[in-house]
Amino acid sequence: MNRNDVTEKIIATKVSKGITWTSVAEQVGLSKEWVTAACLGQMTLDAAQAATIGEIFGLSADEQKWLQVVPYKGSLPTAVPTDPLIYRWYEIVNVYGTTIKELIHEEFGDGIMSAIDFKMDIVREADPKGDRVNVVLSGKFLPYKTY
Amino acid sequence: MNRNDVTEKIIATKVSKGITWTSVAEQVGLSKEWVTAACLGQMTLDAAQAATIGEIFGLSADEQKWLQVVPYKGSLPTAVPTDPLIYRWYEIVNVYGTTIKELIHEEFGDGIMSAIDFKMDIVREADPKGDRVNVVLSGKFLPYKTY
Amino acid sequence: MNRNDVTEKIIATKVSKGITWTSVAEQVGLSKEWVTAACLGQMTLDAAQAATIGEIFGLSADEQKWLQVVPYKGSLPTAVPTDPLIYRWYEIVNVYGTTIKELIHEEFGDGIMSAIDFKMDIVREADPKGDRVNVVLSGKFLPYKTY
Amino acid sequence: MNRNDVTEKIIATKVSKGITWTSVAEQVGLSKEWVTAACLGQMTLDAAQAATIGEIFGLSADEQKWLQVVPYKGSLPTAVPTDPLIYRWYEIVNVYGTTIKELIHEEFGDGIMSAIDFKMDIVREADPKGDRVNVVLSGKFLPYKTY
Amino acid sequence: MNRNDVTEKIIATKVSKGITWTSVAEQVGLSKEWVTAACLGQMTLDAAQAATIGEIFGLSADEQKWLQVVPYKGSLPTAVPTDPLIYRWYEIVNVYGTTIKELIHEEFGDGIMSAIDFKMDIVREADPKGDRVNVVLSGKFLPYKTY
Amino acid sequence: MNRNDVTEKIIATKVSKGITWTSVAEQVGLSKEWVTAACLGQMTLDAAQAATIGEIFGLSADEQKWLQVVPYKGSLPTAVPTDPLIYRWYEIVNVYGTTIKELIHEEFGDGIMSAIDFKMDIVREADPKGDRVNVVLSGKFLPYKTY
Amino acid sequence: MNRNDVTEKIIATKVSKGITWTSVAEQVGLSKEWVTAACLGQMTLDAAQAATIGEIFGLSADEQKWLQVVPYKGSLPTAVPTDPLIYRWYEIVNVYGTTIKELIHEEFGDGIMSAIDFKMDIVREADPKGDRVNVVLSGKFLPYKTY
Amino acid sequence: MNRNDVTEKIIATKVSKGITWTSVAEQVGLSKEWVTAACLGQMTLDAAQAATIGEIFGLSADEQKWLQVVPYKGSLPTAVPTDPLIYRWYEIVNVYGTTIKELIHEEFGDGIMSAIDFKMDIVREADPKGDRVNVVLSGKFLPYKTY
Amino acid sequence: MNRNDVTEKIIATKVSKGITWTSVAEQVGLSKEWVTAACLGQMTLDAAQAATIGEIFGLSADEQKWLQVVPYKGSLPTAVPTDPLIYRWYEIVNVYGTTIKELIHEEFGDGIMSAIDFKMDIVREADPKGDRVNVVLSGKFLPYKTY
Amino acid sequence: MNRNDVTEKIIATKVSKGITWTSVAEQVGLSKEWVTAACLGQMTLDAAQAATIGEIFGLSADEQKWLQVVPYKGSLPTAVPTDPLIYRWYEIVNVYGTTIKELIHEEFGDGIMSAIDFKMDIVREADPKGDRVNVVLSGKFLPYKTY
Repeated sequence: MNRNDVTEKIIATKVSKGITWTSVAEQVGLSKEWVTAACLGQMTLDAAQAATIGEIFGLSADEQKWLQVVPYKGSLPTAVPTDPLIYRWYEIVNVYGTTIKELIHEEFGDGIMSAIDFKMDIVREADPKGDRVNVVLSGKFLPYKTY
Repeated sequence: MNRNDVTEKIIATKVSKGITWTSVAEQVGLSKEWVTAACLGQMTLDAAQAATIGEIFGLSADEQKWLQVVPYKGSLPTAVPTDPLIYRWYEIVNVYGTTIKELIHEEFGDGIMSAIDFKMDIVREADPKGDRVNVVLSGKFLPYKTY
Repeated sequence: MNRNDVTEKIIATKVSKGITWTSVAEQVGLSKEWVTAACLGQMTLDAAQAATIGEIFGLSADEQKWLQVVPYKGSLPTAVPTDPLIYRWYEIVNVYGTTIKELIHEEFGDGIMSAIDFKMDIVREADPKGDRVNVVLSGKFLPYKTY
Repeated sequence: MNRNDVTEKIIATKVSKGITWTSVAEQVGLSKEWVTAACLGQMTLDAAQAATIGEIFGLSADEQKWLQVVPYKGSLPTAVPTDPLIYRWYEIVNVYGTTIKELIHEEFGDGIMSAIDFKMDIVREADPKGDRVNVVLSGKFLPYKTY
Repeated sequence: MNRNDVTEKIIATKVSKGITWTSVAEQVGLSKEWVTAACLGQMTLDAAQAATIGEIFGLSADEQKWLQVVPYKGSLPTAVPTDPLIYRWYEIVNVYGTTIKELIHEEFGDGIMSAIDFKMDIVREADPKGDRVNVVLSGKFLPYKTY
Repeated sequence: MNRNDVTEKIIATKVSKGITWTSVAEQVGLSKEWVTAACLGQMTLDAAQAATIGEIFGLSADEQKWLQVVPYKGSLPTAVPTDPLIYRWYEIVNVYGTTIKELIHEEFGDGIMSAIDFKMDIVREADPKGDRVNVVLSGKFLPYKTY
Repeated sequence: MNRNDVTEKIIATKVSKGITWTSVAEQVGLSKEWVTAACLGQMTLDAAQAATIGEIFGLSADEQKWLQVVPYKGSLPTAVPTDPLIYRWYEIVNVYGTTIKELIHEEFGDGIMSAIDFKMDIVREADPKGDRVNVVLSGKFLPYKTY
Repeated sequence: MNRNDVTEKIIATKVSKGITWTSVAEQVGLSKEWVTAACLGQMTLDAAQAATIGEIFGLSADEQKWLQVVPYKGSLPTAVPTDPLIYRWYEIVNVYGTTIKELIHEEFGDGIMSAIDFKMDIVREADPKGDRVNVVLSGKFLPYKTY
Repeated sequence: MNRNDVTEKIIATKVSKGITWTSVAEQVGLSKEWVTAACLGQMTLDAAQAATIGEIFGLSADEQKWLQVVPYKGSLPTAVPTDPLIYRWYEIVNVYGTTIKELIHEEFGDGIMSAIDFKMDIVREADPKGDRVNVVLSGKFLPYKTY
Repeated sequence: MNRNDVTEKIIATKVSKGITWTSVAEQVGLSKEWVTAACLGQMTLDAAQAATIGEIFGLSADEQKWLQVVPYKGSLPTAVPTDPLIYRWYEIVNVYGTTIKELIHEEFGDGIMSAIDFKMDIVREADPKGDRVNVVLSGKFLPYKTY
């Protein structure tokens, strides 16, 4: 057994029982973004969170332990994703990558936007011309320092 | 002469004269995100915008015409970016890619978040624990349809 | 169980029973292009469609549920396809890619031809010098906008 | 001098003089798709065609000779294209590749749709919900034969 | 079950029973090149051919049906083959590729040598300095056409 | 100056003067296949051959010396060729690679067909259904030996 | 002119004048590791630092300005470095990567060792069996947080 | 059974029983870095070490033998690691690679820092601004020699 | 069953029984280099050799037959090997590749050193500064010929 | 100017003047293998060696200084070499890689054969069946150590 086996069991159970990520997040008491990432094998749960997830998806004690192990992260099977929804995000990074870099440096100087001290919020924005996906990404600015 | 030559001239002039993207955007009258992407060879300008940019960066008539040609887009020299700031964005797509996919589908069904009918806003968020980079991405949801 | 298992079962059953995609499409009541793509794990079915497919291919209730889950799309095992029929399409994109780009931009301006608001029709065209494959691709033009 | 130099000169002249591919095609007397591909270094012209192109773009006798040499084909700088418009076509091949294969084989048996005995027609289709790009691809079916 | 399973069964049976490709080809009544390629999952058999192959290798009815399905072609595990015998062929294409292109175009004009309307014959040529492998490749010339 | 510069000069002169590879081969007194490969930077000429080539293409003494240096071989810009004519050869290796391997081993045992003690002959074969490209490849069989 | 031009000028001047990185670092008043990285185009200098570097290497005012622009980082020409000294570091990451991950997580929990809030110190350690290179890497631990 | 099977059993047992690498290292009597690497399939144990590890993780006699076989090393599934913690190390090599090379050569001359005669020590450094990961890498300098 | 299964069985038996390659080679009566390569799936055995190997490793009749089939060669899981010992050999080819090419051509003219009519001998050379691995590679020179 | 410029000048001068590597090595007083590698930009020369090389190839003082700088090593333009002579060496590593690993470990235990404390000798071995290239590689064995 490994973390990937647990992830696959969670996904298969979700499909079979018709569970939604939103409902899982509510039971865990955290955002849907973090909880979904954790269920998909990208975040580490504590014992209480693992117990909640375990109950929802019918996981054994050992499977719950795997949820508490830091996983080897990265959720894509290829360096350039083929799935159209995920590719659009890769395309945003590719087309706008140098723009994002220029503007963050212009505002903050040399450094990065953290992908660790980071949170994300995905919401529907109603729009008469067609609803929009609005995503807020928030990452701490980490400056390079001289030494 | 090609679009890349114009882009390089714009960047070199920016460094030499100490121009900021924010000031360029103000003169063009559009967001700093769109204007910077356009200056970096990722968007297409109309004649008036090209004239404004041309005046700021001292571009010839032919160089201004190149700004009005739709460029071959993609701003990164490698499929996986090496620059740490841009890599963090690639990492977000890689770590959170399946999460983003799951949550957009849970809310909207099958389809994508458009990277064309799209806008982006990068702002500084003051935070006593260290200021944050907040980025709002907004893309129209485009559903797959049966036919 | 995952979507790929269901796809493989559908294909194996198709071979074993001698089912045609055209007949499946007729029973579903949609185009052969969309229905085949759905059976091959690239589109999402609603409950009624999944029930029809399930009956044709002898799928269990859980397998039918998987047909209603948005799949991770992309049907090729390598970035450059080795199969000669599919490679010819890659070759068309490679040889004519910049031509397609130039002509769409000349007619529509900056933007893309959607691969989501998209349909495809593959038909035989009789020709005394050898019948031809005629394919009509129709995608909504999506313009880039300033912001 | 090589073919690529001639292609770049054609493109630069097109931008500088504001020439359209459609007008070039009219003067050559062939489709805009074939003529544009030829100007972009993907097809071979005969002497008369090269002379017409040469006059439009101010090409020397040697440059016109290069237009009559069969070029090394392939117009994309990377195996997976980064430009959003061209990527959508790659995505269509990736998502629908196995579907296209299945349906052509179901109709014609084993073989391919030729990318050589091939033509393409790109047209605007007016649509109240947003105009569409319609593309007709026509390729001779070439059967595999036993021997 | 899929085509690859059938291919592996054929190969394992060949080793176990000591069958030669030449004898298989004789029973099928076609060239050893086409028949071997078909057994290795690269060509499509008709019902009679599949029955003959099925008898030789002890294939079930369903396995014989798989032989009649057009396979996803491409027989190499990597884009550049590691096996020395196959690599030498890749090397010939790499070293002589531009030469082959030049000479076919000089003789025939723009177009290709078909890999579909194609046959191959591999024979031993006795030579006192060491026998040689002689291979005759024959492919129809397919010209590019204007349109 | 390097070998590549000389190759490019030969090609440019060929286009400008309308020289054919066949006529060059006749003057050198060797096959068109070997002579073309040599002119394209894949084979090494002796002093007399280099002088002949030098006269045809107007090469300087130093340029003729470069023709006598063993070149770094390999004529393709990418591992998988994009040019349709050359790709068809790659496809033949990919689709028939394991077949070629099986049949040579069945006839000769373990070893390879040499790509060094090798010759190639490309000829037109008239055919009422469309002329064919016939290519004879002849390589010495080199057996693996125990030691 | 771009940052890479300035980097190449610095390196060429260093070779020509026999300047050492250690002496440059002393004049800048920072560690040799940071200063060398900055000179090699990986860090951003302030005006005073750029002036010092400019004097040492004879840089123009514009070249000094480029030193103050945040560079596109990444110093290696290939994803897997070919240079033996740098490859050994890649090998350490490859062989010990999962070990480093396990031990940092065992001590700190889920998170990373920062490569931004980071410093490095390279020193010679005398050793009778052959002197050693000792490198101290120090990076702030950044924990993943729930949200 | 192979070494990878043993590694997976060790990891699964560690998760199930809640064993720490530090405790394993203490029982083996060597550093936590070497012992963890050995358990993860990157180092070779002697019989006594294998027996200790075997007792801790409940390994059979054959599994203990596998621990004494030199493994095929390399612990990462992709050339560029996707896991954020390990990627930061790759990034350090990428951003600082040429700097490390310059400084080691400046101090020692041409040669490398050994990754074989090598040791590593990972420790927590308390810091009021956030604890740090301190890693000491020590590798023997190996000079290139003339011959 | 396939050749890879037999190779894995041989290796597992070697570990379990503590067999050495040297002893296997002695029983086969050939060099340890050839015999090890054969056991690792890179060479083809005759019936007598396969019987000897079969007895040592407890192989069935069918498994012995697989040893007599020419294998698909290439023993590395990635194009650039990650294992440090094997990488050093890749590094020698990468660093010294052009040197080897120059010196063989200087001595022999255009051609190659055969990897088929080839033998290798690996021996320990005692050295007071640390024993050395001495490897003698011997390959027949094969000249390119004109034709 | 950079090291690569100096390398190219050395090679061009060698061709133009008809210098042999053997004669250069004699004048430098070291092996032809080391001296050729140094001239090809893979080794570092001391001042006296650089002066000798400089005189032979007519190098300026600055060019001689570049010979004394440790180069970024790696002499091949692609990870898998296309040149047939160099490819054969890559093939030896690929086909025999695991064999070499097994036999060195069987003789020496875990560790590597150094590519730094390394020398190579390439000689012609007369053979009535065709002369052979004999290459002796000698590398110090470096053991992994526990710590």
